[in-house]
Amino acid sequence: MGEDMRAAIYRRGELVVGTFADPIPEAGQVLVKTMACGICGSDLHFCDHAQEFTSLASRAGVAAMEVDLSRDIVLGHEFCGEVMDHGPSSDSRLKPGQLVCSLPVVLGSPGARTIGYSDEYPGGFGEYMVLTEALLLPVPNGLPAALAALTEPMAVGWHAVEIARVRPHHVPLVIGCGPVGLAVIAALKQKQIAPIIASDLSPDRRDLALRMGADAVVDPREDSPFLRAQKIARPVGIGGALSNSVLSKNQLVFECVGLPGMLRHVMDNVSEEAEIVVVGACMQPDSIEPMMGMFKALTVKFSRTYTGEEFAEVLQMIAQGALDVSPLVTDVIGLSDVPATFDALRTPGAQAKVIVDPWR
Amino acid sequence: MGEDMRAAIYRRGELVVGTFADPIPEAGQVLVKTMACGICGSDLHFCDHAQEFTSLASRAGVAAMEVDLSRDIVLGHEFCGEVMDHGPSSDSRLKPGQLVCSLPVVLGSPGARTIGYSDEYPGGFGEYMVLTEALLLPVPNGLPAALAALTEPMAVGWHAVEIARVRPHHVPLVIGCGPVGLAVIAALKQKQIAPIIASDLSPDRRDLALRMGADAVVDPREDSPFLRAQKIARPVGIGGALSNSVLSKNQLVFECVGLPGMLRHVMDNVSEEAEIVVVGACMQPDSIEPMMGMFKALTVKFSRTYTGEEFAEVLQMIAQGALDVSPLVTDVIGLSDVPATFDALRTPGAQAKVIVDPWR
Repeated sequence: MGEDMRAAIYRRGELVVGTFADPIPEAGQVLVKTMACGICGSDLHFCDHAQEFTSLASRAGVAAMEVDLSRDIVLGHEFCGEVMDHGPSSDSRLKPGQLVCSLPVVLGSPGARTIGYSDEYPGGFGEYMVLTEALLLPVPNGLPAALAALTEPMAVGWHAVEIARVRPHHVPLVIGCGPVGLAVIAALKQKQIAPIIASDLSPDRRDLALRMGADAVVDPREDSPFLRAQKIARPVGIGGALSNSVLSKNQLVFECVGLPGMLRHVMDNVSEEAEIVVVGACMQPDSIEPMMGMFKALTVKFSRTYTGEEFAEVLQMIAQGALDVSPLVTDVIGLSDVPATFDALRTPGAQAKVIVDPWR
Repeated sequence: MGEDMRAAIYRRGELVVGTFADPIPEAGQVLVKTMACGICGSDLHFCDHAQEFTSLASRAGVAAMEVDLSRDIVLGHEFCGEVMDHGPSSDSRLKPGQLVCSLPVVLGSPGARTIGYSDEYPGGFGEYMVLTEALLLPVPNGLPAALAALTEPMAVGWHAVEIARVRPHHVPLVIGCGPVGLAVIAALKQKQIAPIIASDLSPDRRDLALRMGADAVVDPREDSPFLRAQKIARPVGIGGALSNSVLSKNQLVFECVGLPGMLRHVMDNVSEEAEIVVVGACMQPDSIEPMMGMFKALTVKFSRTYTGEEFAEVLQMIAQGALDVSPLVTDVIGLSDVPATFDALRTPGAQAKVIVDPWR
């Protein structure tokens, strides 16, 4: 370990491979060697729309995302690292070599900062990070770092299902089977909220959805996932107009695409009294029809990441095999491949979660 | 009573005073003499955007709002009438002369139709209506027809508060003090959810808000109602950063303006984890920022009218004085004044609820 480390760096609008000053742990912080870090859709968004992203965060009052875009930024917030060293006045509870995960937040002299969207603290697309000792979660059961790194995106899906008001007759519908949608499917499966209907344009992603626990998948160019879910929701053996109409209400939909027009599309197609949980991050302003929401008595819940408890719970479930995330890892790459992979991921295809191993 | 009655008629985009065929009660229907009918913002919207209104209703699957816009339509869905006659096979439970209210729905040979948005059944801006006997609610306690007619708009506000997830520390914020906002304020007051903060550009409407039960009113050009509500939400005697930050979350906002840009404005200004209940009907497509919703973990509930139980409950509360609606009635007009009053109401001012008395 020298004075500079290798990293994939966001540098004034471009993603380059270069060097970044080794982070140095302050009091209460731990130096870790990054072992794995997933590429998130938000990382792509940030590269394309950093100014909008940070100004929106600022307007929303997210102080921890304050960032100087003229400085180098090491992205990466879905990470797993190995404890190297402790800063001053540490309890040294975790020994060097221990694999750890953490919420992507570091508490330091400038205040709380979001790891992966900070010009002060490097994220997981570099060789080293400093993390906050109090937030570290030891990775249990010998879980490999590449799978432990999936704690963060899986927690996003877990939280979205946690905040949904699930009712006994619900046939949950997942629109979009990228990593976010797949995480929602895994959470629904683990919670035995079934049957799960999932929709995606890509056959590879539909296959992944089935592997993650979807009971049926739909190509939206061929069939309406909304009608499919409603058909399945009809009771067998009860029959009658009343039960059908009751059951076709209260659809539960997870919007996991996050592109302009999707929310309106979902509001157009969903049944009355539906709940729509927005999990896909749409960075641009988007147009909806409020009266459609009123005529149908819709509820739209915007899901925000996860709680610390949910994050810890998800890590345990992955380590215990209750959440099987291995199908999600479709590639592992080194730092030098990061820029080209970002470009490739802009066109959704067969990839789900690409893991960066800075030491590869 | 002849073969034609006087009515204010929506005729291919224009509002005119003319004649409309007397309605004739079928089996299960009752002929009533219209005694009072309020003018609703939706009536103005319908006159200006009938095509968009009905096509949106059709896309939303609201079959009861199917209407042929080339035919004459008698608007008016906030009514109180006096029983005149019964159709065939009636139980004649209600005697002639009895004042009645009803959900604005009539069940007839063409199926269920919305009174006030139908080319088959005239609404309350005409001398007579047919209503469904099974839906009739006798007006109790000698309540005047003009106040009983407020059951419908008050039920809209009551329902919005019913579907809100109210928490003990909430300082409810009502944006817009037209009839919808005033109905929400009255419902909050009756349910003792306080203190109530209300916001409107018009000083007359702010005065009405205070009379209906608001504890503080804000001119949004001078002060932020969102910050005002947050300041008031701070606990007295507990203090400390933690309790402040907990209490400034979970704001509860009723959006009662219903103009494009309002939902985005509310999402921009509300605190994190807020719940926004949309009660103002915005007929046009509207732009929002989904990421603002996600960064703040917002919930948006679109409120749709009311249930039959809520409607009946509100009529009882008005008749018993538990809901004092008298400040809401700012004018009573005859049929010939309806077109000019519609024009005047397009500019919000001192008027709250204008009641049409077809016999005046």
